[in-house]
Amino acid sequence: MTPRPVIIDCDPGQDDAVALLMALASPESLKVLGITCVAGNVPLDLTQRNARRVCVLAGRPDMPVFAGCPRPLIRPLGTAEAVHGQTGLDGSGLPEEPAMPLQDRHAVDFIIDTCLSAEDGEITLCPLGPLTNIAVAIVKAPQIVPKIREIVFMGGAALGPGNRTPMAEFNIVTDPHAAQVVFESGAPLVMFGLDVTHTVITTPARLDAIRAIGTPVAAAVTGMLTFYDRHDIERYGDPGAPLHDPCVIAWLLKPELFRGKDVHLAVETNSPLTMGRTVADWWGVTGNAPNATVMDRADSDGFYALVVDRLSRL
Amino acid sequence: MTPRPVIIDCDPGQDDAVALLMALASPESLKVLGITCVAGNVPLDLTQRNARRVCVLAGRPDMPVFAGCPRPLIRPLGTAEAVHGQTGLDGSGLPEEPAMPLQDRHAVDFIIDTCLSAEDGEITLCPLGPLTNIAVAIVKAPQIVPKIREIVFMGGAALGPGNRTPMAEFNIVTDPHAAQVVFESGAPLVMFGLDVTHTVITTPARLDAIRAIGTPVAAAVTGMLTFYDRHDIERYGDPGAPLHDPCVIAWLLKPELFRGKDVHLAVETNSPLTMGRTVADWWGVTGNAPNATVMDRADSDGFYALVVDRLSRL
Amino acid sequence: MTPRPVIIDCDPGQDDAVALLMALASPESLKVLGITCVAGNVPLDLTQRNARRVCVLAGRPDMPVFAGCPRPLIRPLGTAEAVHGQTGLDGSGLPEEPAMPLQDRHAVDFIIDTCLSAEDGEITLCPLGPLTNIAVAIVKAPQIVPKIREIVFMGGAALGPGNRTPMAEFNIVTDPHAAQVVFESGAPLVMFGLDVTHTVITTPARLDAIRAIGTPVAAAVTGMLTFYDRHDIERYGDPGAPLHDPCVIAWLLKPELFRGKDVHLAVETNSPLTMGRTVADWWGVTGNAPNATVMDRADSDGFYALVVDRLSRL
Amino acid sequence: MTPRPVIIDCDPGQDDAVALLMALASPESLKVLGITCVAGNVPLDLTQRNARRVCVLAGRPDMPVFAGCPRPLIRPLGTAEAVHGQTGLDGSGLPEEPAMPLQDRHAVDFIIDTCLSAEDGEITLCPLGPLTNIAVAIVKAPQIVPKIREIVFMGGAALGPGNRTPMAEFNIVTDPHAAQVVFESGAPLVMFGLDVTHTVITTPARLDAIRAIGTPVAAAVTGMLTFYDRHDIERYGDPGAPLHDPCVIAWLLKPELFRGKDVHLAVETNSPLTMGRTVADWWGVTGNAPNATVMDRADSDGFYALVVDRLSRL
Repeated sequence: MTPRPVIIDCDPGQDDAVALLMALASPESLKVLGITCVAGNVPLDLTQRNARRVCVLAGRPDMPVFAGCPRPLIRPLGTAEAVHGQTGLDGSGLPEEPAMPLQDRHAVDFIIDTCLSAEDGEITLCPLGPLTNIAVAIVKAPQIVPKIREIVFMGGAALGPGNRTPMAEFNIVTDPHAAQVVFESGAPLVMFGLDVTHTVITTPARLDAIRAIGTPVAAAVTGMLTFYDRHDIERYGDPGAPLHDPCVIAWLLKPELFRGKDVHLAVETNSPLTMGRTVADWWGVTGNAPNATVMDRADSDGFYALVVDRLSRL
Repeated sequence: MTPRPVIIDCDPGQDDAVALLMALASPESLKVLGITCVAGNVPLDLTQRNARRVCVLAGRPDMPVFAGCPRPLIRPLGTAEAVHGQTGLDGSGLPEEPAMPLQDRHAVDFIIDTCLSAEDGEITLCPLGPLTNIAVAIVKAPQIVPKIREIVFMGGAALGPGNRTPMAEFNIVTDPHAAQVVFESGAPLVMFGLDVTHTVITTPARLDAIRAIGTPVAAAVTGMLTFYDRHDIERYGDPGAPLHDPCVIAWLLKPELFRGKDVHLAVETNSPLTMGRTVADWWGVTGNAPNATVMDRADSDGFYALVVDRLSRL
Repeated sequence: MTPRPVIIDCDPGQDDAVALLMALASPESLKVLGITCVAGNVPLDLTQRNARRVCVLAGRPDMPVFAGCPRPLIRPLGTAEAVHGQTGLDGSGLPEEPAMPLQDRHAVDFIIDTCLSAEDGEITLCPLGPLTNIAVAIVKAPQIVPKIREIVFMGGAALGPGNRTPMAEFNIVTDPHAAQVVFESGAPLVMFGLDVTHTVITTPARLDAIRAIGTPVAAAVTGMLTFYDRHDIERYGDPGAPLHDPCVIAWLLKPELFRGKDVHLAVETNSPLTMGRTVADWWGVTGNAPNATVMDRADSDGFYALVVDRLSRL
Repeated sequence: MTPRPVIIDCDPGQDDAVALLMALASPESLKVLGITCVAGNVPLDLTQRNARRVCVLAGRPDMPVFAGCPRPLIRPLGTAEAVHGQTGLDGSGLPEEPAMPLQDRHAVDFIIDTCLSAEDGEITLCPLGPLTNIAVAIVKAPQIVPKIREIVFMGGAALGPGNRTPMAEFNIVTDPHAAQVVFESGAPLVMFGLDVTHTVITTPARLDAIRAIGTPVAAAVTGMLTFYDRHDIERYGDPGAPLHDPCVIAWLLKPELFRGKDVHLAVETNSPLTMGRTVADWWGVTGNAPNATVMDRADSDGFYALVVDRLSRL
């Protein structure tokens, strides 16, 4: 099978980092055309730097990394240092300055140019942060939409509670208007929201399995996740935190690990109380045609086995 | 223990009927001061008649029954004949015209008058339908609020999906503005939403247990629930339908059957997409002080044992 | 001609007071069935007392005055002491305690009872404050609507700016949800908003003409308006303040003083920025059928001549 | 005085055309760096072609013209062929295909690149259509904001009614979210909304004065405005239509023709009823600091004299 060409749009973030590592460790399945960065977990200056730090860790200083939009479409940027630390990669122990360059081109233009030079339905976009870059690309050049195979994204909460607000998940509420642009674009959507990501928790035993790999990559990941887990342990009383973003990559590698449903997906952008809620018509009561596969189940042991397998390759 | 004085505000509805029967069968615990009716599952002309049909069935033609508001505060009335049938009590086999009168007074005024002649914190309101009557009473005479011990209501969905829309439960979305008035009134709230009611399903075995009581009341209930269950069997693939409204009465009789959490509760009234969503701050991310106990767990076997026990008394 | 039976619903307020005086001075045209009071310019305790103070001033201690809702439907009450003073009738010099009783019945029930015992299309409602009482009456007993000839109200701004917010007029923004109930009720509406009331300004010359009447009523009105004018003189640099509420009574007495247009009228209740804006489809761009006559022009000299004429009668 | 460097962002449109002609006729005052086009009055394919047709008419085939965003940020595109005709320049009699090229670069990138290579406060942006291009430039590269001297735009209605909806003007309601981005950007704003543009009406006498210039440019303008005027003559009963967009250029050339007020300016983006309303705090009731000069008066004779003077130069 030819590797699937993907662009990973991210805001690392420890879980973005694990997702990037898994993708870069899977060249037989994924052809990573470039990594585009957006403001989200931390400001853009940090997310683009962190993406490069992870590429260097993965032994891929050749990977093109692009900086994108430093702010959401409409709302002021709210970041999540309480979860990710001041750098966004706290706990990693990686050098602050990566030994590889940032590309000159704007992330939005890399996305547009890549799509426009591709065949119809060729490019898979993997947004792991707020959807700003994808939305701006679509507004600027809507003719990219037919080139997109799927937009497989981490974000939202459709069945259960949010994490940033009672109703909304961080990535979506950070730029709900961008989510609206993407959801209404006509591109096929695959959503990994809290409904599924909160079923893949990094328990101490799973963290031990990663540590046991014994490589520098494993050490960095173990450090990052130790830092990252503490927030959810405190808030939810869970044994660890979900590996949100890696779900997207895991599904591209092994879709049988997940279960979902084809439903209509919308997003609230008008009311402060429910701002950023992803509204999935799970029981088909609206009569709207499905535009998304919304995931709600995962084989969490299988998922962590895949994480360990791929991290072991690096 | 002195029986707790309650007003049951309802829109029968088969599950309202079971709730009324359980309450009327429990005089040692509940002193039902009156039954007030509202437009909801079916129009007001039917709900007030149905309430009286149920009183007659329970052998309580002396019970004062009042008609209230025939429409929600702001939104046009939407009823639910698809669930409850054209009469609202389809399947009951009860005589259409009950042999007992409707009271002259308006339900809103019965609520106000009863509260104003009570001690502080004396009256428990049990709304089982849209909250219109309660809200109009509060707007017309806010001085009733200190007289209210608790408002124990069936309505809303705070953790999982809605049933009327992807986000909203029927009672609340039918009059979300009334819910807002009630939620912001300062009266203590206990919410039985879909999160908990969808855990108490009338399975065939449980329906058999009701039928086996062998009384006319049991026959009527069995007939009603057979009709009522079919909707959820079709939509959700469940083995039966939830007994939504009886949860309120069951909790008053045996609170240990349920588990909940004290949280801040609000309701969406401004956006069509999420209209009527009950927003509970389950993880305490907003900093708002709790104004409600929101239920999320039930001992469903214990619940159905209680249902059978109380129906057996009639 | 038989006098037109009216109920005046008000929140006095100096301009309400002048409106009440004009109505009570015109028994050949208006049969004032009762005066109902609402929270608005000042809290309900003051508005109902002020209404009685004005009745006593007019020599009508027999007039039934009713207290209604002490709060808006949904929003918290915001009053306007900055305009009307702490009592709502600052400057009047009237005794604080009026020598006439408040009726026992709730204003909402007086409105409902009066309508239900009338012929179809018989009763004219004249709301001069927030529309809470009218809305609660309609929700509680929608069968009153066919009994209503017209709802002639002061409120809103449809063509120009608001006064309480950039978009909204005080009466409407104080209870926009009540306005929505009234506007959507199907009752014929006649709106006197800021568009027309800001054309009837109490200039010093007009105030002199009132003072020159030389009666105790004229002295009280002159005192009230001197106090009341100062706010608009300061804010708008106008020579005085508009006599908002008297426009309603003036039109009932002499409709040829005003010009309006039949248009569709709605009200914003969902967005904080434009909350309470009355939206009139002045140019017919929506295709919605007219439900209101919205006034935009007045013969202001004729108006003040009428004010002086009627005040002279008392 | 050095000519002021401007970028004109437009969606021609007959009134855009007149604005472009006036600007191109005024090199002593305005240095037109480029013309950027957006979807609005008609789709982008037509607006960019029309901009070039006007440049050719003005004898400026060397002017760089750029195509921008073909759709608003969030809302679906709604065009205005009822006003402007199927081509957007109906009545002009100009050749359909202009003898000059469209630039390759995207309008958004021309705006960004031009700003980033300028001094702080150097560039004046003149948007005459929906604000999509400006907003996307700001989201993509917020660092352009300090480079902007002013954003002088035609759009909105702040004091009186809208034209596209009862509350909203066409340019703003076509992309209200873009307006929000621009209004909140921190760049100085000068707004020419319907409040002022509806005071500069092309009466028959004024149209005759343009015709009397006797040049091919005057003939094309006369033809366009004859077509364009008919819509307002029918709807409003006015003697002609406002020259909306030329107000922006006229103010840059002769600011003394206009009067305005420094106020806080916001835009409604959340409610369908008032969507796209520009909310100006005309009386300073909100306490928000001014971010815009909102125009409300024009010397209309002086304005048309300027129009004739500049058209005569071409």
